[in-house]
Amino acid sequence: MSTPDFEGVFPYLVSPVTPSGQINEPVLTRLCRDLIDAGVHGLTPLGSTGEFAYLTSRQRRRVVEIVLEAAGGRLPVIAGVASTTINDAVAQARDYQQLGCSGILAILESYFPLADGGVFDYFSAIAAAVNLPVVIYTNPNFQRSDLSLSAIDKLSRIDNISYIKDASSNTGRLLSIINLTQGRLKVFAASAHIPVCVMMIGGVGWMAGPACVAPRQSVELFELCHAQDWDRAMERQRALWSLNQVFAKYNLAACIKGGLELQGYPVGPPLAPQQPLSETGSAEVKAALEQIGAL
Amino acid sequence: MSTPDFEGVFPYLVSPVTPSGQINEPVLTRLCRDLIDAGVHGLTPLGSTGEFAYLTSRQRRRVVEIVLEAAGGRLPVIAGVASTTINDAVAQARDYQQLGCSGILAILESYFPLADGGVFDYFSAIAAAVNLPVVIYTNPNFQRSDLSLSAIDKLSRIDNISYIKDASSNTGRLLSIINLTQGRLKVFAASAHIPVCVMMIGGVGWMAGPACVAPRQSVELFELCHAQDWDRAMERQRALWSLNQVFAKYNLAACIKGGLELQGYPVGPPLAPQQPLSETGSAEVKAALEQIGAL
Amino acid sequence: MSTPDFEGVFPYLVSPVTPSGQINEPVLTRLCRDLIDAGVHGLTPLGSTGEFAYLTSRQRRRVVEIVLEAAGGRLPVIAGVASTTINDAVAQARDYQQLGCSGILAILESYFPLADGGVFDYFSAIAAAVNLPVVIYTNPNFQRSDLSLSAIDKLSRIDNISYIKDASSNTGRLLSIINLTQGRLKVFAASAHIPVCVMMIGGVGWMAGPACVAPRQSVELFELCHAQDWDRAMERQRALWSLNQVFAKYNLAACIKGGLELQGYPVGPPLAPQQPLSETGSAEVKAALEQIGAL
Amino acid sequence: MSTPDFEGVFPYLVSPVTPSGQINEPVLTRLCRDLIDAGVHGLTPLGSTGEFAYLTSRQRRRVVEIVLEAAGGRLPVIAGVASTTINDAVAQARDYQQLGCSGILAILESYFPLADGGVFDYFSAIAAAVNLPVVIYTNPNFQRSDLSLSAIDKLSRIDNISYIKDASSNTGRLLSIINLTQGRLKVFAASAHIPVCVMMIGGVGWMAGPACVAPRQSVELFELCHAQDWDRAMERQRALWSLNQVFAKYNLAACIKGGLELQGYPVGPPLAPQQPLSETGSAEVKAALEQIGAL
Repeated sequence: MSTPDFEGVFPYLVSPVTPSGQINEPVLTRLCRDLIDAGVHGLTPLGSTGEFAYLTSRQRRRVVEIVLEAAGGRLPVIAGVASTTINDAVAQARDYQQLGCSGILAILESYFPLADGGVFDYFSAIAAAVNLPVVIYTNPNFQRSDLSLSAIDKLSRIDNISYIKDASSNTGRLLSIINLTQGRLKVFAASAHIPVCVMMIGGVGWMAGPACVAPRQSVELFELCHAQDWDRAMERQRALWSLNQVFAKYNLAACIKGGLELQGYPVGPPLAPQQPLSETGSAEVKAALEQIGAL
Repeated sequence: MSTPDFEGVFPYLVSPVTPSGQINEPVLTRLCRDLIDAGVHGLTPLGSTGEFAYLTSRQRRRVVEIVLEAAGGRLPVIAGVASTTINDAVAQARDYQQLGCSGILAILESYFPLADGGVFDYFSAIAAAVNLPVVIYTNPNFQRSDLSLSAIDKLSRIDNISYIKDASSNTGRLLSIINLTQGRLKVFAASAHIPVCVMMIGGVGWMAGPACVAPRQSVELFELCHAQDWDRAMERQRALWSLNQVFAKYNLAACIKGGLELQGYPVGPPLAPQQPLSETGSAEVKAALEQIGAL
Repeated sequence: MSTPDFEGVFPYLVSPVTPSGQINEPVLTRLCRDLIDAGVHGLTPLGSTGEFAYLTSRQRRRVVEIVLEAAGGRLPVIAGVASTTINDAVAQARDYQQLGCSGILAILESYFPLADGGVFDYFSAIAAAVNLPVVIYTNPNFQRSDLSLSAIDKLSRIDNISYIKDASSNTGRLLSIINLTQGRLKVFAASAHIPVCVMMIGGVGWMAGPACVAPRQSVELFELCHAQDWDRAMERQRALWSLNQVFAKYNLAACIKGGLELQGYPVGPPLAPQQPLSETGSAEVKAALEQIGAL
Repeated sequence: MSTPDFEGVFPYLVSPVTPSGQINEPVLTRLCRDLIDAGVHGLTPLGSTGEFAYLTSRQRRRVVEIVLEAAGGRLPVIAGVASTTINDAVAQARDYQQLGCSGILAILESYFPLADGGVFDYFSAIAAAVNLPVVIYTNPNFQRSDLSLSAIDKLSRIDNISYIKDASSNTGRLLSIINLTQGRLKVFAASAHIPVCVMMIGGVGWMAGPACVAPRQSVELFELCHAQDWDRAMERQRALWSLNQVFAKYNLAACIKGGLELQGYPVGPPLAPQQPLSETGSAEVKAALEQIGAL
């Protein structure tokens, strides 16, 4: 893999959809450009925050196209591939590679519970289908299956499966994964983990929705961690954490979209029947953003 | 609503897919015809057993077309509509109505948890989009949200929401729903409930995968229940229950497809990464089918 | 075992405790006598409703003594034995046998999860310690471990383990147990199951808190079931079910104690920090009792 | 409160019980002395690892007496108080204060779910009953109720409720608690958290079973954290974490007792029906201990 390693802050982008079902290109483009100006290290369309589970194939593809164009090769774009079937996931992954993505965030959806054999088949098929680094994703809160340590170990031995993003709230599990895979998998934190803690135990950054609304603060935090200036990092972290707390209380997409609306990005509400952020929620998001100087 | 009421045995049809991704029309047609010959009271494509969550829109539509053609108007076809978004669900429902379905089985998929307001919006939008009776479906085992009693009560007051299929294993909840909705909702059992019990408390039939492999036995059981010949019904039920027990142990689609393969229907395995029925599972299904004379 | 078989309605007795920590003998005695006059078939002190988990050993023993004296040998008393350790459970069981109980309701408490081997050891040790029929009890709602079907099968082969009381809400599981144990275990329903359904699939009665406040109605329902007069049984069942629904909504002990207070038994509130039945709860219990003529 | 603040490594002591049910004084005394010699900052009898849920009142009391005598006032002893009722918990707390404990670890057991009002009543009654600092304990894995953030906030305003030990695996929640209680509650980590992470976000130490078998290594780790020498701390942490991982895989008491047996402390198995550590488990514990030089 000649690609430079991924590390740093990768905001999970929202997917703004117009009432007629079109992806809102101007606002998504502006958001991407502003995030790039703020110094983020990569862009991740079609994560949980990106409502991948609520978009059609066509909408998903359009999101990727717009983000790639806005990025213009200045920073890596790692697009989310998510499906219940291998065939569909492989098709998405190939398509996103052809469009020009730098990496794939591989997400397993399922309806019936799936044993480890099936889990391995799914992720390994995606990895085999592309010539890009793959980030495997596990989110026990919203998905029907969590990746077991033995499945992670086996997947980590596949050449281009190089990263894991774990969206559990169990930070100890991340250290177990790091110890287990001995450098074969690099770890990205999610918004449920404290970024400074994950960086300290050996993580390489975070992929998270809140970075969309606090990109500059997130990048500063990452730089302090990278410089191992832990005390100042923790000082920043304490304030930034309130933001993650608020987001954990509400529907993630509703929250990030609500926060962006407050910042002047007309990204609209999450797709129905998801409900827009409530007034109370909006007030809490506003307060959290003001507290860190992001509004 | 001038449609005659739905009642009786509605097998949840499997969705046979060829390696190249086509719906296998000959085998699905033959299965439907044999089920009709066995006396089932309706056909339900695209339920859980029908792997709706693993099919593309195009594949789903094709399944409905084939089943409608095989049914030829001789018995009602109630097609499953399932989505995370209102827009997509409404489009499916309208399409299936136009194709000629007699009713809609409305299934809510979700990724983020959804409050009752959103749940109500989803099901009521489907009901408003069609001129057909709607069966609302709740399956706490495989779905992220269970319908609360108050949501069910509110939905039952919509004119064409006339049925509920509850796939929990909590039979007492069905009596609570019957008491609560006072005739506004009729109840179909699922394979996790004992059909005779549900019939005795006032149910109108069952929608279930196992009826695909034991249609004649299921119809006989229904007729005994309908005639309130409870003692003979329970005698039959005892033997038939082993079948439900086996199916509960394994992936539902893998099991029904495996059972149909044993009966000579080349329906193939469930879609990957779901795994085919194991040898042990196949032996158990075989024994259960032989015991009730279905093999 | 020369004891006559247990069958019918066994109310789960409450444990009235005075503010100073004494078991309130007069009220418990009066309640037992009234239940006997109403025709119940047995008495069960120290079930979940009896707050076994909130009483000291001394208080538990006193409850058993009072109930035995009130019963006066006219009907069987099956006392709850509950512990986390084998030693303590065995001591309780021997003690209750010596006091004169007719059977033991064996309840496993645990803090750490327990594998099937330990579960088997616990129940088999209780059975070996006494010369009485043992009812094994499983309640996945409030206990840390549910009895697996294979543990139940193995336990059913012990001579004096003759009954099971399953307090899950999964009625299908009861039929699986009946099919599995082929007469070695008789099944008692709990308040989460519909008694008529359990009787129809082969149950022998029910052990439940609500029978404390509706003994006459419960006995009538049992007799209709016993006579296999299913239609009239279901008619009664429909009304009685509202009572179970209310009790499922609130803390069980608070509810039954609250209902008994309404009926003139000064049994007091549940032990602190459990909260007494709220005003809303009390109004709902009142309405449910009035509806079935129990107030 | 004139007591010096608690901070550092507080091993959760095991409770060695002889076959006849006596607390094994010689081995418990020796263990305490060796832990003190290794530099631990306090002793915590009757935590989860101490099998409080499996001991009689008399056995619990005896454990506390022995530990206090071994400590001889050289370091604080914080004894676990655990009950389902307020009366019993208050009696235990008063008794342990009188015996000479320096603090109380307050644990809420429950059978029926308990609303926040009851939770508050329980912990505040314990605090009111003693003149000692109280550590509130929450363990969502083994207990039926987790402390909500609002209950924690309310409890933190009680004068002598000064610490919390959170045994969830959600490290982010600890930072939320620290932010929320603004110094009113100090946080101890549990074995499910990475100690270095908890120290970095502002924790004061850890209370955990593994410290029983690796006291010297734990104390060294604490000192590196205390000196904010994070890089060397993380280096040690990485190795020590394997120990926590092993313990998370098996019954905690069985594991720590098994590890101590390997180290030459004849503490015996956990109380039946808990099973002793399996051979495989023992080999894993042995390897983990050898790796960190604790065997």
